[in-house]
Amino acid sequence: AGDVEAGKAKAAVCAACHGQNGLAQIPTYPNLAGQNEQYLVSSLKAYKNKQRSGGQAAIMQGQAAALSDEDIANLAAYYASLPAGGK
Amino acid sequence: AGDVEAGKAKAAVCAACHGQNGLAQIPTYPNLAGQNEQYLVSSLKAYKNKQRSGGQAAIMQGQAAALSDEDIANLAAYYASLPAGGK
Repeated sequence: AGDVEAGKAKAAVCAACHGQNGLAQIPTYPNLAGQNEQYLVSSLKAYKNKQRSGGQAAIMQGQAAALSDEDIANLAAYYASLPAGGK
Repeated sequence: AGDVEAGKAKAAVCAACHGQNGLAQIPTYPNLAGQNEQYLVSSLKAYKNKQRSGGQAAIMQGQAAALSDEDIANLAAYYASLPAGGK
């Protein structure tokens, strides 16, 4: 499993769209807080591998391209650790 | 926006993986409860259009293929209406 603190540090850029607390400020983006860690890993890898298109996927393809497998594990651990719904 | 009650009726099949309360029972699947409605529409359409692969996407390609645009709107409204984290 990933390192929550390392993920938090890496998440600064993510927060612009997905919120400081993992709740998206923009309705076309997903909330990430409390999402399942394994699903977050899987979806970030799918973006990195350009296996997701449509919607806002082009943005995430670009973001995920810069992430190592370790970064992905850490980010997934961090967002999974946040309380769903911000509570 | 979609019809929450119609979405709830349509969601019976979804619950097998995503949970009766929109919280996935299986860690490789995403929680849907309290997710942003517009994002849910966008992601269901992406699965339907085979714009998502990798992970468990093949399952969702099949499920979404059977959904009309109205079904998608209703399901998105339903899952967005559920409390995030089940609380």
